[in-house]
Amino acid sequence: MTTTPTKKPAMFETEKKSALDAISQAQFIAFAPYIFHASVILRDSGILNKVQDSRTNGMTLEEIGANVNMSRYGIRILLEAGLGIGLLLRKEGKYLLSKTGHFFLNDPMTRVNTDFMRDVCYEGSKELKSSIEQSKPNGLKYLGDWETIYQGLSILPEPAKTSWFNFDHYYSDNAFPEALPMVFAGSPRKVMDIGANTGKFTLACLEYNNNVEVGLVDLQVQLNVAKQNIEQAGYGNRVQYHERNVLHTDSELPTGYDVIWMSQFLDCFADDEIVFILEKCHRALSADGRVFINETFWDRQRFEASAFSLQMTSLYFTTMANGNSQMYDSKVFLGLIDKAGFEVVADTDNIGLSHTILELRKK
Amino acid sequence: MTTTPTKKPAMFETEKKSALDAISQAQFIAFAPYIFHASVILRDSGILNKVQDSRTNGMTLEEIGANVNMSRYGIRILLEAGLGIGLLLRKEGKYLLSKTGHFFLNDPMTRVNTDFMRDVCYEGSKELKSSIEQSKPNGLKYLGDWETIYQGLSILPEPAKTSWFNFDHYYSDNAFPEALPMVFAGSPRKVMDIGANTGKFTLACLEYNNNVEVGLVDLQVQLNVAKQNIEQAGYGNRVQYHERNVLHTDSELPTGYDVIWMSQFLDCFADDEIVFILEKCHRALSADGRVFINETFWDRQRFEASAFSLQMTSLYFTTMANGNSQMYDSKVFLGLIDKAGFEVVADTDNIGLSHTILELRKK
Repeated sequence: MTTTPTKKPAMFETEKKSALDAISQAQFIAFAPYIFHASVILRDSGILNKVQDSRTNGMTLEEIGANVNMSRYGIRILLEAGLGIGLLLRKEGKYLLSKTGHFFLNDPMTRVNTDFMRDVCYEGSKELKSSIEQSKPNGLKYLGDWETIYQGLSILPEPAKTSWFNFDHYYSDNAFPEALPMVFAGSPRKVMDIGANTGKFTLACLEYNNNVEVGLVDLQVQLNVAKQNIEQAGYGNRVQYHERNVLHTDSELPTGYDVIWMSQFLDCFADDEIVFILEKCHRALSADGRVFINETFWDRQRFEASAFSLQMTSLYFTTMANGNSQMYDSKVFLGLIDKAGFEVVADTDNIGLSHTILELRKK
Repeated sequence: MTTTPTKKPAMFETEKKSALDAISQAQFIAFAPYIFHASVILRDSGILNKVQDSRTNGMTLEEIGANVNMSRYGIRILLEAGLGIGLLLRKEGKYLLSKTGHFFLNDPMTRVNTDFMRDVCYEGSKELKSSIEQSKPNGLKYLGDWETIYQGLSILPEPAKTSWFNFDHYYSDNAFPEALPMVFAGSPRKVMDIGANTGKFTLACLEYNNNVEVGLVDLQVQLNVAKQNIEQAGYGNRVQYHERNVLHTDSELPTGYDVIWMSQFLDCFADDEIVFILEKCHRALSADGRVFINETFWDRQRFEASAFSLQMTSLYFTTMANGNSQMYDSKVFLGLIDKAGFEVVADTDNIGLSHTILELRKK
């Protein structure tokens, strides 16, 4: 965890590839859909597992064939594809799991990303161009008939539903332990949780501090779920529920709150909408009120692989979620904050897995 | 051009990646479909071209937006995706074309591969699993209602047709100048061209040697096309046409030929079928007859990128072409030759772009 100002060399600034690596990478892009399908089958058919079990001995095609229910031809084309993709190595006729194969098979983040791509995004991904052109998530129709994915989340077909929630869960939650001391540093009496969803952060606040009151702001359908969770936990007497669609021009946010919390909420909106929502926050807060924003910015990641995952998640927002939002570059996002009349008091990277917490006050 | 025995270190044998590179590569695989779509749009919308034109100065998002007909949001998510994919670099807010971007935009092989994937293979690629399970090209239905792609080639819908022929053309042809002296080294009077297709090699033979006669073996629909080309060139008096389906058990190949030529023909067949066809060749040839096979073997390529392209082309054979053939590993292929009763007299790699010519005689 580091605190502002953070100065790192910018990502994606310098050429790191040789010409030979670059032409290889260009072929990877050209054949990327086959890479995806072959890799997923290698994983899900148990072939990679079998090869992993053979450790440094490796396994011949024949040995793999004796353990996997697939034609010898099928196993052969997949194993050979796995060599070029980089999942496998081959030494004297024996296949071995590569480092990439190890991560593709075992790394939780990679599995979550792969399943999310396969079950939620794959069919709709081909609508990237039309989604951009029409500013709407044109790929969503392959999952259901909704305007945005948020209307469909609770009724997504399987396996999309499981893979969506696994993805969401993997990238959420782990920011709270570090976030709570920041939010409570100024001893707020009342905290507003915008985009409260199922009430996870609200509950964390109520447990963290015995006196704080929390106001949940969300659509009614979400508030119903949150209310159930909060009543069950016995905290019903310290919460208020405020049904709002934050994009509506005919309603304002409730007033009287010391702090506003928004966690992975604003990335669901377009630039202008973010400014619109922050301006509502501005009007709802007193002069010394604070806004805490928990977001994942791709340019604030420690590794380019993490930045890349977020850039790809932006394409999910475009094609499947809402057609107009993304995982932001912090520089773009900070510009919107400024435009809405706020200034950044603290800017803390590396919260949890990949989060940044911004603390704002009115300019 | 090198002649047997060739001894190179085996491809794909040693781990070259750091753990960090490997986990990045695993994310590339996980999000590969988005990589493909974003890259194709970056190329086809003119964004990569614009960035290339800016050379080492680079171009801001705003400057690109002024030149490309796309929403600012669309350009932004694509440019940012292009960073993680490796097509672009960004320095002080200005986007620059990377080496990978240069190849993806300009390299003819990469363009041909990308268009082939997009127009011929993309929709059907998701049928890789079912194609393996059912041993038939289950992805072909997205192009037309044929048993194999060979029945549909002349009537493929556009743009699939153009992209298929560009791909085929790119990987063919350039082996002939080096092949002809080999084929004619033994002064054959009669050459059999199996899988003669449009008659390109036949014509090359007739032009190369003023006395040779050539017998074309193919399906009638192909022979009609070849005949037209050969008559047009004025060589009608030195050719014979033999209509054959080489897989039929009730017909043999014509006899009386000194040499049999098969160019990128046997890769369209499964292991057992290759043995079956070679056994027919064996019966049709006299004791001192020769078979010349022109093939692209992935393990004989100079670069892993070329091997990778061929391994991916195998997946095209599985999903789109016939469901049971591939670009072979030469070791597998040589085993089939042995099984059919032939031995290899000469084995020459690096013919043209990526070819190997095998000369066989009866054992």
